[in-house]
Amino acid sequence: MNSIKIGILGLGTVGGGTVNVLARNADEIARRAGRPIRVTHAAVCNLTRKRICDTSGILLTTDPYEVVNDPEISIIVELIGGTTLARELVLAAIRCGKHVVTANKALIARHGNEVFAAAEEKKVIVGFEAAVAGGIPIIKAIREGLAGNRIEWLAGIINGTSNFILTEMRDKGRSFRDVLEEAQALGYAETDPSFDVEGIDAAHKLTILAAIAFGIPLQYERVYAEGITRITSQDIAFAEQLGYRIKHLGIARRTAVGIELRVHPTLIPMRRLIANVDGVMNAVLVKGDAVGHTLYYGAGAGSDPTGSAVVADIVDVVRALTADPENRVPHLAFQSSALADLPILSMGQTETAYYLRLHAEDRPGVLADVTRILGNLGISIEAVLQKELAEGETHVPVILLTQRVQEAAMNQAIAAIEALPAIRGPVARLRLETLS
Amino acid sequence: MNSIKIGILGLGTVGGGTVNVLARNADEIARRAGRPIRVTHAAVCNLTRKRICDTSGILLTTDPYEVVNDPEISIIVELIGGTTLARELVLAAIRCGKHVVTANKALIARHGNEVFAAAEEKKVIVGFEAAVAGGIPIIKAIREGLAGNRIEWLAGIINGTSNFILTEMRDKGRSFRDVLEEAQALGYAETDPSFDVEGIDAAHKLTILAAIAFGIPLQYERVYAEGITRITSQDIAFAEQLGYRIKHLGIARRTAVGIELRVHPTLIPMRRLIANVDGVMNAVLVKGDAVGHTLYYGAGAGSDPTGSAVVADIVDVVRALTADPENRVPHLAFQSSALADLPILSMGQTETAYYLRLHAEDRPGVLADVTRILGNLGISIEAVLQKELAEGETHVPVILLTQRVQEAAMNQAIAAIEALPAIRGPVARLRLETLS
Repeated sequence: MNSIKIGILGLGTVGGGTVNVLARNADEIARRAGRPIRVTHAAVCNLTRKRICDTSGILLTTDPYEVVNDPEISIIVELIGGTTLARELVLAAIRCGKHVVTANKALIARHGNEVFAAAEEKKVIVGFEAAVAGGIPIIKAIREGLAGNRIEWLAGIINGTSNFILTEMRDKGRSFRDVLEEAQALGYAETDPSFDVEGIDAAHKLTILAAIAFGIPLQYERVYAEGITRITSQDIAFAEQLGYRIKHLGIARRTAVGIELRVHPTLIPMRRLIANVDGVMNAVLVKGDAVGHTLYYGAGAGSDPTGSAVVADIVDVVRALTADPENRVPHLAFQSSALADLPILSMGQTETAYYLRLHAEDRPGVLADVTRILGNLGISIEAVLQKELAEGETHVPVILLTQRVQEAAMNQAIAAIEALPAIRGPVARLRLETLS
Repeated sequence: MNSIKIGILGLGTVGGGTVNVLARNADEIARRAGRPIRVTHAAVCNLTRKRICDTSGILLTTDPYEVVNDPEISIIVELIGGTTLARELVLAAIRCGKHVVTANKALIARHGNEVFAAAEEKKVIVGFEAAVAGGIPIIKAIREGLAGNRIEWLAGIINGTSNFILTEMRDKGRSFRDVLEEAQALGYAETDPSFDVEGIDAAHKLTILAAIAFGIPLQYERVYAEGITRITSQDIAFAEQLGYRIKHLGIARRTAVGIELRVHPTLIPMRRLIANVDGVMNAVLVKGDAVGHTLYYGAGAGSDPTGSAVVADIVDVVRALTADPENRVPHLAFQSSALADLPILSMGQTETAYYLRLHAEDRPGVLADVTRILGNLGISIEAVLQKELAEGETHVPVILLTQRVQEAAMNQAIAAIEALPAIRGPVARLRLETLS
């Protein structure tokens, strides 16, 4: 099938990430979408700047309208940000009958009603998954995955910079000012950090989430926004003593008399899952009347994660370009003709770390025998925990954590350990995963 | 627009929940789907049994083929479970050219390849979101939301009964057998609990997740399944001492030589978010090359949560029934003509609990003045934390947690408290949400 040609406006962090993801995973993406997707034309400010992506095969121009008007291109990806030129370009692309994908939260929150009305008139799609919470597919989850629900409320950690600052203040007792300077040095926070730390960025995202949750127009101007600049490490410590964490949340809640839309630092019980979302990570907790509480967690920013969301939107648009059944979402995500014949490994071939519990005679040399058996099979020990000899017992429990190894080797080791005369009964074996 | 007519096979827990969700949220769902969705025909075992849903307006029959062959119906929802009659009915519905939605994990894991091949031949859709992790839209997230990624691995708590048992064993030091009996009494576990505690149910779900993550056929027979029956509370305590939690995970991992598919109890570092998913809740952690780590959390079973997933699939199918642009997923989840004119509340109208930090003279009566001000405004105090007077200070920090109240009342209270002569400087105010 013919490839779909994409034009990108802006090849910075997100644009570069999108090109990289499309190139690196070209095969996987074509297997899902049913046809290849290629970036053929891109607009940049400076033709000679060093970029994070390979631009070979992409025609570069400094005139974004050249991309918007390219008749070969059916999808325009807007990644330049801001609400002036971006708005004009998106509206121009729609007027040309092109579909649009954007990561621009300010544009959607402030001008989305105008953009969507134009898109509906021209019967084109505007995808904006990347505008909220980076790589987390939160727009799709709420808009489609929870379509059967009356959404009651949602609460999100939707600004990674603020979450990073609050996490550092808590973990290390540092001041807001001190951590902000570090975040700027690390590139998490802009030189003008007010969008992040004054809650404006979170308010943009909350505007979008509330619209799709409740079916209301985008109303950025009605959002109450308060940032984290006045939080002290003292408050964080007091909250902790009372069993709470302070998180910067965007909250949208349906009440009997209207919708609450507010962004502010919030104490939440520390046992809640979302209270344990730390550093630059994002998470959105959604309460639906049927589904109950659901939570969506992941990276809220960054080149590849945001590129992941942009590409998901591109694939959705590509599927909608033609309406024949072959182009619906395939049952198994990939086209049935493109299923892979990858071997499934036997358990002996799988690799994991292990927790072993043995009961050993409490005398010197036993542990040395055990570690020799493991060492001969190339199994490294990560930790040993030897318990006290209990009253009236002759054997003590010994716990070993090992590094990763093939299960076949571990089976051999366990058989050899169980054959040692100083070991009583079978070795209890549990697998251990760091999930990193 | 004409309503879409649905036939349901089975009106038990999930079938009843589906009917309840469709009825309760009929308006919200029609606003999203662009037309009303009605259940008109249902097959049950016993016509007179008491049900959890209202069946008025639904023609009941004991012959499921009557529903499958009803020419008015375009979508058959299979909720009877099992792999014999359910398989025959699903294949018969497909042969009639009907779309199918099912919550049947065993059917999809064991016969999905056959079912999907039949569906592709007849150009109909088979939705199975409800087959994995109940209300969590995990199929949609992986299949569409992460379409740009090469999925590296996923690990899920996908059997709520096992997670409930392990959580109770950890929290209360109870034995496996003891907690299992309670779970059976509470209705979490079946009388024959082997599907849950031997890992078979989780293996069904892992089969499905692995297929859509890696683009491989469903291969249930290749999954290694180990349950939680041999876990002791001693192992849970030892793991805890080493910084780990024991969770029953389904793990699918891509390696250089093939795919690992395994279900077993697993130690995971207790600081990981998924290690803190407790009780009957489910969560799936997915690692994509572009998006990094994402986690999806929610109720893995139950009438309404599973009904939520069934309805999401129904809405997807309804949108695909006609291919005109008006029926694509609307930008704001709801049809633009159906956006609601709900009022957005001012911050004074919003309601939340509060954390107040004041600095008060360390003498009797000051706290009484503060609590009187709060009480007169109808604000209840949840907790008070009074700190020690620091060396050389005249005022002590006092922390108050209040119950929920309108912000306007709290603004009044704070103004009055700040006017007290014994209070120094402004009152620090943070909002507190229990997110329950």
